[in-house]
Amino acid sequence: MTDLIPQIESLHQPELAQALRQRIDQKTKPLGSLGQLEALMLRLGLILGSETPALVAPQMMVFAGDHGLAARGISAYPSDVTWQMVENFLAGGAAVSVLARQHGLALTVVDAGVRHDFAPRAGLVVAKIASGTADALNGPAMSVEQCAEAIHRGRELLRERPGNALLLGEMGIGNTSAATLLLARLAEHPVEACVGRGTGLDDAQLRHKTEVLSRVLARHASVKAPLDVLAAFGGFEMAMMTGAVLQAALERRVIVVDGFISSSAVLVAAQLRPAVLQRCVFAHRSQETGHRLMLEALHAQPLLDLNLRLGEGSGAALAWPLLESACRILSEMASFAQAGVSNKD
Amino acid sequence: MTDLIPQIESLHQPELAQALRQRIDQKTKPLGSLGQLEALMLRLGLILGSETPALVAPQMMVFAGDHGLAARGISAYPSDVTWQMVENFLAGGAAVSVLARQHGLALTVVDAGVRHDFAPRAGLVVAKIASGTADALNGPAMSVEQCAEAIHRGRELLRERPGNALLLGEMGIGNTSAATLLLARLAEHPVEACVGRGTGLDDAQLRHKTEVLSRVLARHASVKAPLDVLAAFGGFEMAMMTGAVLQAALERRVIVVDGFISSSAVLVAAQLRPAVLQRCVFAHRSQETGHRLMLEALHAQPLLDLNLRLGEGSGAALAWPLLESACRILSEMASFAQAGVSNKD
Repeated sequence: MTDLIPQIESLHQPELAQALRQRIDQKTKPLGSLGQLEALMLRLGLILGSETPALVAPQMMVFAGDHGLAARGISAYPSDVTWQMVENFLAGGAAVSVLARQHGLALTVVDAGVRHDFAPRAGLVVAKIASGTADALNGPAMSVEQCAEAIHRGRELLRERPGNALLLGEMGIGNTSAATLLLARLAEHPVEACVGRGTGLDDAQLRHKTEVLSRVLARHASVKAPLDVLAAFGGFEMAMMTGAVLQAALERRVIVVDGFISSSAVLVAAQLRPAVLQRCVFAHRSQETGHRLMLEALHAQPLLDLNLRLGEGSGAALAWPLLESACRILSEMASFAQAGVSNKD
Repeated sequence: MTDLIPQIESLHQPELAQALRQRIDQKTKPLGSLGQLEALMLRLGLILGSETPALVAPQMMVFAGDHGLAARGISAYPSDVTWQMVENFLAGGAAVSVLARQHGLALTVVDAGVRHDFAPRAGLVVAKIASGTADALNGPAMSVEQCAEAIHRGRELLRERPGNALLLGEMGIGNTSAATLLLARLAEHPVEACVGRGTGLDDAQLRHKTEVLSRVLARHASVKAPLDVLAAFGGFEMAMMTGAVLQAALERRVIVVDGFISSSAVLVAAQLRPAVLQRCVFAHRSQETGHRLMLEALHAQPLLDLNLRLGEGSGAALAWPLLESACRILSEMASFAQAGVSNKD
């Protein structure tokens, strides 16, 4: 397993942390007055190992996959929407496409396991493990070997890419259910507390989804280890994202976590290697019910709270300028001494 | 008064509102899944009168002024910090300077009434009404004539500037106290509920500030009309900002409101002309105690909640990319029909 799952060292840099805190406190502003942005400055400095961190060649990677469980009527949309949205990402018409253009994020769409054959295209990586996962009500969604292969591919894909920041995105009809199952099992919450309306279920559909997910959890009652849980419930896009997260953490890239699905991949990675979380910036609190519990399980304080529930990486992209601002403030903002401004007595 | 305070018409555009809602709902995403960003799209569309609004030449105007009340020990910093920070804005070293550069916002610093003579500089407008306001404990902070002159100058300054968006910023040691007084009187809250630590008062200093502000309110107990309240308690920077807000509303520019001080200028403008609020986007919820009550009084739902309390327009600048995103999504994101994506049944 250590070949597949790299060791991630804890970032223990007390001197750098102190230097960053001093730097932040000497800026021409009342102490602490940039609030959560100051915590972000500290985090980015520690991840990138610099008092003046700079974000370089940010990579938005959107992992896509289909889910066997989708046939059970747990989503408001048909599975075909997964590949149709991949086409939309590539054509530049999806929310994440628009936002990636706005912020200069390199957008890569990864076919991790979509039930569709794509023509080759710039910006598309076909890394298909299989054409969708199996129905988790009949057995594990994927084999342990497939899960390992997906993680391995995710690590490789990240390794091939430049830059020092990874933004997580995903697409997969049914993957809100998969994330709910991961949360319920890995954070030990009752499914009723974790389940939500996904892309827009009504009350009856939500009851049905809850019932299906309860049965899936019961079917795999004895599965507890993170990788086994990922194989039992996950999508290929989530397993591949888990690999990308581990590799990004190993390389000390900044990992910008999007919403509920992305967080579930981070939850798996963090249970395997807790130091992953030191490299994460949580972009937003999703409207999806379980995301609050997910963020608690990850001890995460997200930047935005805009009631988003789109996924795709849209929340990560929307939060991106705040990371840029944090870096610029560290580098460009004057200190009291530099500006000749009187400090508080 | 109608010469000074323009009529602001209510934006009654039911057909455009319906067209915008349809446009938003037909984008390739689950209904409502962009949360608060969808409300922002609607608002920007209605202000700018277009289904595909575009933000042009945004103006960050930072109004600066000194406060007679500052001599009463109600701020953690000395009054000289006002002019020192103006120099810092102009030299490019302050938070708002950094953020304005990041986002391509034209930055203008307005000396509305700083107790200092500035050398002329690019980016600085000297529109001084007087060298700081009078001590509000002895009488009104400014005369009614000075207040009118400040509003008039604020309107003129805005009129001279291009673009369709105004971002509000301010600097003035003591102006948290002035904003607290405006809130307490105009929204009819007890001063204890409105007062906060400003730039960083300790418990004893906060008690002192509360006592001073109570005495100021008692001194002007009979003053109720918005313009009289503004004259009694306000700073020149706040009065000039009120003028700029009214002019921007008249011209149907988007008004991006920063924190506690900026909101207090908007509160005055909105009590004079309620339709001003239709043109406002509230950037963030400040950590300053009274801002929560202020936002309630303005029926405002801010975009960010990052525990900021710096002012200067820093929160408005940090929120700016979200406005850009809202416009781009309206213009560039594909509909289900355009993208060939299956919609929900």
